[in-house]
Amino acid sequence: MKEQLTVVKVGGKIVETPSTLEQLLTDFSALPGRKVLVHGGGRTATDLAARMGVETRMVGGRRVTDADMLRIVTMVYGGLVNKNVVAGLQARGVNALGLTGADMDVIRSHRREVGEVDYGFVGDVDRVDGDRLARLVADGVVPVMAPLTHDGRGTLLNTNADTIAGETAKALAARFDVTLVYCFEHAGVLADPDDEGSVIPRITRQSFAALAADGTVSGGMLPKIENSLRAVEAGVARVVITRADAIGQPGGTVIE
Amino acid sequence: MKEQLTVVKVGGKIVETPSTLEQLLTDFSALPGRKVLVHGGGRTATDLAARMGVETRMVGGRRVTDADMLRIVTMVYGGLVNKNVVAGLQARGVNALGLTGADMDVIRSHRREVGEVDYGFVGDVDRVDGDRLARLVADGVVPVMAPLTHDGRGTLLNTNADTIAGETAKALAARFDVTLVYCFEHAGVLADPDDEGSVIPRITRQSFAALAADGTVSGGMLPKIENSLRAVEAGVARVVITRADAIGQPGGTVIE
Repeated sequence: MKEQLTVVKVGGKIVETPSTLEQLLTDFSALPGRKVLVHGGGRTATDLAARMGVETRMVGGRRVTDADMLRIVTMVYGGLVNKNVVAGLQARGVNALGLTGADMDVIRSHRREVGEVDYGFVGDVDRVDGDRLARLVADGVVPVMAPLTHDGRGTLLNTNADTIAGETAKALAARFDVTLVYCFEHAGVLADPDDEGSVIPRITRQSFAALAADGTVSGGMLPKIENSLRAVEAGVARVVITRADAIGQPGGTVIE
Repeated sequence: MKEQLTVVKVGGKIVETPSTLEQLLTDFSALPGRKVLVHGGGRTATDLAARMGVETRMVGGRRVTDADMLRIVTMVYGGLVNKNVVAGLQARGVNALGLTGADMDVIRSHRREVGEVDYGFVGDVDRVDGDRLARLVADGVVPVMAPLTHDGRGTLLNTNADTIAGETAKALAARFDVTLVYCFEHAGVLADPDDEGSVIPRITRQSFAALAADGTVSGGMLPKIENSLRAVEAGVARVVITRADAIGQPGGTVIE
């Protein structure tokens, strides 16, 4: 039987608010077994950009990353957010190591081709070095991954944190029994968006088709669940969509 | 015989100017054997502070680090400078890993006591985890260390890069034949400050006493050489003071 490993992805909102960050660090530290944390940091990047007079442009929820914005996200994601999370976990006895994709070449990507939109210095992941990450994890290290990768030619690339979490989970699935947890503002995928009690406890490829067809699941949740199902099909044991303050607890939506 | 390892410390000026950074990355990549890079980043921190309306206050060449300045140096040292150096080394086939002292708890420090000056969030090093660094190095990894440490209670601390380089060299001296290279604006320690050709080729504890007594060496060079001699007395094989564009070449001042 493979050893259990949990990959937790938290958005910027959680790690950028002192009270929710403290809670997250405590909850994450208490998670049993091997683990990896992937974080965002978009709000702080937007705030810093404003203070520096750099305009933030979002298209379809994605940040357009020109050279100035790349400097900002490198500072915020790779520096401010990542190192404070690492120091906070160390204070709780978790042997955290902050990583971007460039560090030990753990995640290589290529700059997204220009289509209708030129997203600038945004990376699409080519490969995650599961061997290297597995060796670190086996050595008791807890990787804390910032949403930055590199192209292998010296350029850092802003990369979606959900994608990093998903690709990392897949790359570790051969060696570990991987649970991928996406933290979210709701208690799970809701059957009724106005009712926090209407969490759908389990979604499979089969049930997803029905939920999508009858409109129970729609909008931004469709690609999130589709990506989760693909992660499961690629060997991840299960994906859990839950609230950040409920990681490690039963509940949420389990996709398997 | 112990394997050779070189710890190179470069100041902010070198890593913050694109042309000298390129040269450094190329020269450092060409260095044979095991290696570690320690960098500064003060100018960029000062520039960013100015753009954010945060005042930079230096006392005796040291940065006073209040909460705002700590955020800035965390972004600049731990993010912008560190990750660009890492990506640049990866592009040259060097398996770089960016580290602050918080990452894997490699350097623990305590906040400097308030004396005549309150330096704020500035750390004095307590210990470097030589075992952990040696394991990484033996695995082919090249640590790239930012001048930030942590107190083990969740707080990052701004820490002098020369000190980090010296303490790291000492911590690795039991396992490796360590050469510590301090890059400098001159070709070495000069007997005549106006003559670049007057490099003193070798300084020992004995010759240093004479050089200090007759005033050949004075000012800021005194503590630099004293610290180098202490590193040698603590097991570092030799300390070289040279220009950044001369690392790996014969020359400079060798302290042993």
